[in-house]
Amino acid sequence: MKIKALYTGSFDPLTNGHFNIIERAAKLYDEVTVGVIVNPSKKSMFTLEEREDMIKEALKDFDNVKVEHFSGLLADYVNSNKFNVVVRGLRATMDFEYEIQMAQMNARLFDSSVETVFLMTDPGYSFISSSMMKEVHSLGGSIDGLVPESILKRMNEKLACK
Amino acid sequence: MKIKALYTGSFDPLTNGHFNIIERAAKLYDEVTVGVIVNPSKKSMFTLEEREDMIKEALKDFDNVKVEHFSGLLADYVNSNKFNVVVRGLRATMDFEYEIQMAQMNARLFDSSVETVFLMTDPGYSFISSSMMKEVHSLGGSIDGLVPESILKRMNEKLACK
Amino acid sequence: MKIKALYTGSFDPLTNGHFNIIERAAKLYDEVTVGVIVNPSKKSMFTLEEREDMIKEALKDFDNVKVEHFSGLLADYVNSNKFNVVVRGLRATMDFEYEIQMAQMNARLFDSSVETVFLMTDPGYSFISSSMMKEVHSLGGSIDGLVPESILKRMNEKLACK
Amino acid sequence: MKIKALYTGSFDPLTNGHFNIIERAAKLYDEVTVGVIVNPSKKSMFTLEEREDMIKEALKDFDNVKVEHFSGLLADYVNSNKFNVVVRGLRATMDFEYEIQMAQMNARLFDSSVETVFLMTDPGYSFISSSMMKEVHSLGGSIDGLVPESILKRMNEKLACK
Amino acid sequence: MKIKALYTGSFDPLTNGHFNIIERAAKLYDEVTVGVIVNPSKKSMFTLEEREDMIKEALKDFDNVKVEHFSGLLADYVNSNKFNVVVRGLRATMDFEYEIQMAQMNARLFDSSVETVFLMTDPGYSFISSSMMKEVHSLGGSIDGLVPESILKRMNEKLACK
Amino acid sequence: MKIKALYTGSFDPLTNGHFNIIERAAKLYDEVTVGVIVNPSKKSMFTLEEREDMIKEALKDFDNVKVEHFSGLLADYVNSNKFNVVVRGLRATMDFEYEIQMAQMNARLFDSSVETVFLMTDPGYSFISSSMMKEVHSLGGSIDGLVPESILKRMNEKLACK
Repeated sequence: MKIKALYTGSFDPLTNGHFNIIERAAKLYDEVTVGVIVNPSKKSMFTLEEREDMIKEALKDFDNVKVEHFSGLLADYVNSNKFNVVVRGLRATMDFEYEIQMAQMNARLFDSSVETVFLMTDPGYSFISSSMMKEVHSLGGSIDGLVPESILKRMNEKLACK
Repeated sequence: MKIKALYTGSFDPLTNGHFNIIERAAKLYDEVTVGVIVNPSKKSMFTLEEREDMIKEALKDFDNVKVEHFSGLLADYVNSNKFNVVVRGLRATMDFEYEIQMAQMNARLFDSSVETVFLMTDPGYSFISSSMMKEVHSLGGSIDGLVPESILKRMNEKLACK
Repeated sequence: MKIKALYTGSFDPLTNGHFNIIERAAKLYDEVTVGVIVNPSKKSMFTLEEREDMIKEALKDFDNVKVEHFSGLLADYVNSNKFNVVVRGLRATMDFEYEIQMAQMNARLFDSSVETVFLMTDPGYSFISSSMMKEVHSLGGSIDGLVPESILKRMNEKLACK
Repeated sequence: MKIKALYTGSFDPLTNGHFNIIERAAKLYDEVTVGVIVNPSKKSMFTLEEREDMIKEALKDFDNVKVEHFSGLLADYVNSNKFNVVVRGLRATMDFEYEIQMAQMNARLFDSSVETVFLMTDPGYSFISSSMMKEVHSLGGSIDGLVPESILKRMNEKLACK
Repeated sequence: MKIKALYTGSFDPLTNGHFNIIERAAKLYDEVTVGVIVNPSKKSMFTLEEREDMIKEALKDFDNVKVEHFSGLLADYVNSNKFNVVVRGLRATMDFEYEIQMAQMNARLFDSSVETVFLMTDPGYSFISSSMMKEVHSLGGSIDGLVPESILKRMNEKLACK
Repeated sequence: MKIKALYTGSFDPLTNGHFNIIERAAKLYDEVTVGVIVNPSKKSMFTLEEREDMIKEALKDFDNVKVEHFSGLLADYVNSNKFNVVVRGLRATMDFEYEIQMAQMNARLFDSSVETVFLMTDPGYSFISSSMMKEVHSLGGSIDGLVPESILKRMNEKLACK
């Protein structure tokens, strides 16, 4: 049985919470695709291209992980690419009600062979989110250890350019 | 004892979750008014008139249900129309904390004879919302069985006109 | 439309949280039955007879409320007595997940015309329960205003007899 | 990559909620072991042997599912049998806080290659539990469609023997 | 040991929920600073100056409470002013998940001697928020007893000026 | 202002989650009393005397912490000993609803000058409890780093004596 997994998000930017889920998914599945959501109406700190580059750089040591982007209905992307599982991270302090709502809607839309599986976020990362990372960093607070080092370097460069 | 019930919402559009609550309220109360909230500052897919028409069409088989709209403070509308109960649907995966907050505020504002009563949404509809229906439908996903058939027809027409 | 409502519990003893729900139900429904659950395997402070007496005394001013007891499956009692609604109180700080589970099971077991309806407990009573009342009272703490006066008198008598 | 999954429980008895999780796990993993927890201090309706037999019978159509039992620390059983994933079902109306607590404790005790993965229980089964099934069934209520047919037969036999 | 406490918020406007927390904090700590958050990008009913004035007026009877404002990272303000505790109010019906997320992020950013402490909001105020107060008041509903009298006077004046 | 704080529990045994709260309380308050709850009807692993000894040993480096025990109503103990605050730890994954219920009941029973204050448990300890520690330890699992070293030594001795 060869299992193709998908992990999606805006990743603006990738945090260590995301990294931790991807690292664990890479052990569980034969192939993990990180799918960056294209959402032109949502203002982002990094462009789609920058985000894809940054994720590739952060994940360059994983042989079975690749980075793509998609737009439109998640279920169309999942069904047409024949993913077997969609991986989601659950944080203790958040997410559960929203995630269960999406999982139940997607259970209708996904091909019947596709499953949403949840991994519990490491408690040390359960309080972080991309938006909190951006806010704290932009105000000069330290986010050391909460985003991959290569990501922090890019955030510092972006902040310096403003 | 004759009980007049009110069920309010934006209904942009009415879903089968709403329909299910109205259907059950119609068995419990002598008269059920579906009160469409007029909120000019909120962008909607359907105009107020369209929404009222669509609800009337979907509910045309219920003798004791009528459709109205209102603006301003809910409590003013409730008190001046002498409703006895305000019906709310509770979804397992959401809503509870917001609903209890509103119910407690309204307990102060409603006439003392008015009660907020809650019906549990059918688990099969517990994950759907108007905004999710619009998003999935606009991206080409199937929402068959999640909104009344007459509503789906109107959504298809609206999408074709864009 | 004549609506017969049922409100069940162990009522060992009745608290002001219960009283508040019954008082409000009595305004909403033509007839409210307080159904005391007979559960021989559960140790209680007051006997079934005492509990029925105490509730009758506390509710003697309500013309449309009566007190009964039942054993076995709730749905059998509900269906055979042709109740129209089963009233439940929801406390902000508790109950929601358990209540939704029971409501969904009962939706299968009740006749299709029967509904479970929820009233939000008054915030001033949201923290009280029969077992907490018994524990605090037995340790000499004041529960004045948290149970009806006639109930408190009976609790004092029972404590004195020990 | 060959993935061995474990799904544990008391299964006293197996419900359709359990069955649904096992059925889905069997599509995701090369081998699924149903591990019945041996807990002599907990009174059960069916003996360990009966429960294993009943699960085998209910799952006889799944080629990659086998039934075992274990006692002691879950982590010892998982580590020594080299399971790769431990599957848990999450019900919308319950479980989340307990499950995250166990997952975080087990993350310390499991070998580093072992993951706890969560599947969301089908909303149609989100309200059922073994203990509720036993209670409703023993009181004569219908649990048709909530447990596998072969299980219901065994529950009827057990009830007749009492 | 002399403890300097900080209580922050937008206070647009101060409610009796806020007032209740400040009153209780003033008994627990030697000095309580009410820190008004400066957030130019967020539209407010009252200007920063108005809000500071209104809070001072409402709290004029407390000797150990003072009012300040700050912008930027909360942790910078806390660390540089050597506050010992940051006080937060928890409402039964809301807040918990957001608050725990912020507390965990701040535990990293605060000096190691700084603690976030939580007081439970009085149940009588657990349903109110500044935004709900503004909405209900602007629609003509009574918020008497939910905001300090001096604040209500200022809200009435502001509404009259529109 | 001199503040006397109380932190209560069964402490059967003290965990690093408890230790962490006490350590932080000792920085915030002039005097912290660890109050061991005497509950003869609850079976414990360690006797009251053992638990008091173990806590004293684990906390021997804190000058302003002392260990006592009490029985009966918490509020009586708090009021008669003139404690100013009762400290509670909140774990992300649990506790909140129970804690708010107790805090609201105690607000009635405590002298008006007494406050319940909550500290958020460190995320690294949010999943541990005394009962889980005992269960995992008794089954041979490692709880290293989850209880103080001196406590673990006592647990090992107790287990060896069985």
